[in-house]
Amino acid sequence: SAKATSATYSKGLDTYKVSMRLHAENRSKLVKQMSDAPKNGVCLFLGGETSHRYETDMEHPFRQESTFLYLFGVHEANCLAAIDLADGASTLFIPRLPEEYAVWMGEIYPPSHFVTKYEVDFCRFVDEIPEWMASRQPETIYVVEGINSDSGSNSKPAAFDGIAKYNVDRSRLYYDVAECRVRKTKAEVDLMRWVNSISSKAHMEVMRKVRVGMMEYQLESEFMHQCYTHGGMRFLAYTCICGCGVTGATLHYPDNDKQIADGAMCLLDMGAEYHGYASDITCSFPASGKFSQDQKDVYNTVLEAQRAVEAAMKPGVSWPAMHRLSERVLLEGLANRGILQGSIDEMVAANLAYYFMPHGLGHMLGLDVHDVGGYVKGDKRSTEPGLNRLRTNRVLEEGMVLTVEPGLYFIKPLLAKLYADPAVARFATPRLRDFENFGGVRLEDNVVVTATGIELLTKVPRTIEEIEAVMAQQWTPA
Amino acid sequence: SAKATSATYSKGLDTYKVSMRLHAENRSKLVKQMSDAPKNGVCLFLGGETSHRYETDMEHPFRQESTFLYLFGVHEANCLAAIDLADGASTLFIPRLPEEYAVWMGEIYPPSHFVTKYEVDFCRFVDEIPEWMASRQPETIYVVEGINSDSGSNSKPAAFDGIAKYNVDRSRLYYDVAECRVRKTKAEVDLMRWVNSISSKAHMEVMRKVRVGMMEYQLESEFMHQCYTHGGMRFLAYTCICGCGVTGATLHYPDNDKQIADGAMCLLDMGAEYHGYASDITCSFPASGKFSQDQKDVYNTVLEAQRAVEAAMKPGVSWPAMHRLSERVLLEGLANRGILQGSIDEMVAANLAYYFMPHGLGHMLGLDVHDVGGYVKGDKRSTEPGLNRLRTNRVLEEGMVLTVEPGLYFIKPLLAKLYADPAVARFATPRLRDFENFGGVRLEDNVVVTATGIELLTKVPRTIEEIEAVMAQQWTPA
Ligand SMILES: [Mn+2]
Ligand SMILES: [Mn+2]
Repeated sequence: SAKATSATYSKGLDTYKVSMRLHAENRSKLVKQMSDAPKNGVCLFLGGETSHRYETDMEHPFRQESTFLYLFGVHEANCLAAIDLADGASTLFIPRLPEEYAVWMGEIYPPSHFVTKYEVDFCRFVDEIPEWMASRQPETIYVVEGINSDSGSNSKPAAFDGIAKYNVDRSRLYYDVAECRVRKTKAEVDLMRWVNSISSKAHMEVMRKVRVGMMEYQLESEFMHQCYTHGGMRFLAYTCICGCGVTGATLHYPDNDKQIADGAMCLLDMGAEYHGYASDITCSFPASGKFSQDQKDVYNTVLEAQRAVEAAMKPGVSWPAMHRLSERVLLEGLANRGILQGSIDEMVAANLAYYFMPHGLGHMLGLDVHDVGGYVKGDKRSTEPGLNRLRTNRVLEEGMVLTVEPGLYFIKPLLAKLYADPAVARFATPRLRDFENFGGVRLEDNVVVTATGIELLTKVPRTIEEIEAVMAQQWTPA
Repeated sequence: SAKATSATYSKGLDTYKVSMRLHAENRSKLVKQMSDAPKNGVCLFLGGETSHRYETDMEHPFRQESTFLYLFGVHEANCLAAIDLADGASTLFIPRLPEEYAVWMGEIYPPSHFVTKYEVDFCRFVDEIPEWMASRQPETIYVVEGINSDSGSNSKPAAFDGIAKYNVDRSRLYYDVAECRVRKTKAEVDLMRWVNSISSKAHMEVMRKVRVGMMEYQLESEFMHQCYTHGGMRFLAYTCICGCGVTGATLHYPDNDKQIADGAMCLLDMGAEYHGYASDITCSFPASGKFSQDQKDVYNTVLEAQRAVEAAMKPGVSWPAMHRLSERVLLEGLANRGILQGSIDEMVAANLAYYFMPHGLGHMLGLDVHDVGGYVKGDKRSTEPGLNRLRTNRVLEEGMVLTVEPGLYFIKPLLAKLYADPAVARFATPRLRDFENFGGVRLEDNVVVTATGIELLTKVPRTIEEIEAVMAQQWTPA
């Protein structure tokens, strides 16, 4: 139903106003994606549920389940929703709240409030689903059931009293939604561009404030504060990784509890989300504000890999090919700088890059940081080292949003393996030993694939000159 | 086993160093508490497990389960632990981590590392529990199973392959642990005093920074940043409640997404935790920095109630009596200021206070913000209005840590009920109508019961003069 004006979601001040048309368009995409299904079908979705710390009454701030947010934009907990395939009509089902809710949690709104707020076609109570479904008598009820290709875990499908009386299809809806989520609409890209700009600015503010002697978690705290204060972003897209010094070589380092030493290379992988849409940005820089020669050599090698990939990305290019490209540029960069030696082709044949970048080049980004749809249903991960780590094996298409995140890490157990295996140890120069406590460098951009190439969503300093200039601003005497 | 020096937990810089003796003492208390049990028994505890956002691979930062933290001080996920009642020996069981963990999450340590780190007597792997238990052949295995009196939810008991072959007691350990946790040791109080000082300072910094026109969540963000940066506190003890203006009348207001209007009374209920130990502090102040007469009248009434209770608290005093005392002082204060009228005794008989403070006066505080042990096993909540909301009905004892949090709220649905019932409407003066959009005032201190009274752990400005002075400091031109 076209409307002259549209309801929006925003966190006030100058934060982004998300039009509810974004979600109407997402629902239309899904109905089209399922156009081969019998028309008398209903898709039923389960929203996220409130959660607590263990058995206590400490309730966590509520973050909506991503597919539910994608289709309906709803931020309330304990809802379900349906899409009628016959006409695309959307019905939100809200919980019937106890009278006490108004005293403890906030105003209780009637269903009509949510029709206006979210521009769904209808709103009923959750306890009315059995009756609602009986009046529809759908040939099939489709529910979201599938295995997340990053976690290996199952999604929790919608259910209601009496669902067993219906023909329930648990096989396709998860994958149909994933296909839709893989290609972003203009409205989604516009939103993600803003999310990226807020996280980018927060990264720059952290760069200005970092000092030798600080704790890693103080950088995490500054980042979260910047994103929440300036972007209304209560949630991060993932837990901050603040590896400064040797901890930078732990790929998903979760602790952030070490003190930052002089000479440390900081690797900060941090991104906030807004209305569920994620950013995922990594900056690397020296705590001192000035790159040493070792730091320059590793950093510029990674930057060369990132730029080579970003220059080559466009529709029709396969992601595994981009991964292999980044590996080759990384190996060339290390060889050019005397950290590795020998034939690049032989290094590639020996999968040498895997010892220095044992993760994939990047992944789909959207409402989940490792967004759904990396693999088409039935596709399996490659078994080749390097490619086996890729979170997607897709060929690029316009509208896909991905991270480009090459990195170089000096990971003690992997270096030990390298030195123990003559087939790869022969590529090491004596200089490689100098990097044992270096940590790592990762440069992670978020990009959207356009008709002819990419648009870079991330706006952070990337060259050594840019980084040193940003960090130096703070050093001007007050 | 007494040691000359003790291992400590700390987040670096000048954050608090928690001695592992604190947990050894907690274990000793539990063994003593269970001295009536057969000596050939083993208590088995389940630590917290890693958790993810729905079915995705987004792992939440890990927060240990409170009883496990209380007894062992361990911050690693997916552990179990045992205490042998015969000799008090403690055994920690750690998960056997895959080789990949070292690349993605951090160094893999052997069991001996944890014996040193946490000063437990033994450390083994989780998969060794069946064999370990078989070698012990305990007469009874005690596991933690009980209903949290605040949430009504069950705790998750420890289990292992083959536990069914043993005599398992699921009835007492939960309550024995709760009895221990109710009375804090000196080491716990010392830690909680520091936690309170950090949260108190953060509250004051928020007071200095609040401005009309800000969003409520910007106060939440500032508080979290202060506590994490200066206290290493990654976790809050509970979600911040930042009700500014009318939202202050929603007792557990979870949204914090409204803009702060001129004339708004801010009610900020915020507390961080360290090593799991909570603070729970509420400050109330005008966004403008200057109290209006209406704000002074409500504020001073609540302050009189808080001071009356804190002056009366000492061992032997019952908490329900303190709740009733606070209600009477609140009613007197409102009557003295022309907001209510009539006989205080009649107001008390009509349970009038319940319309203005529909929550309990305070609760136990410890490793949970609503700490365990509020009710002795088998005790039920009173059915009387006011007392039915109390999270504890205990008689005060030395070492108990509680919140003292009287409040006055102008809650629309409750005021509507009041006006609709002649039995209570008669106490309203016309002036009460002026407060319909006031929101609320709550003043929440954390106190420890001493031999003769209490020690106040919370150090925030409480009088109107103190608050206005703190807020004015920031207004000095730069
Ligand atoms: Mn990433
Ligand atoms: Mn409280």
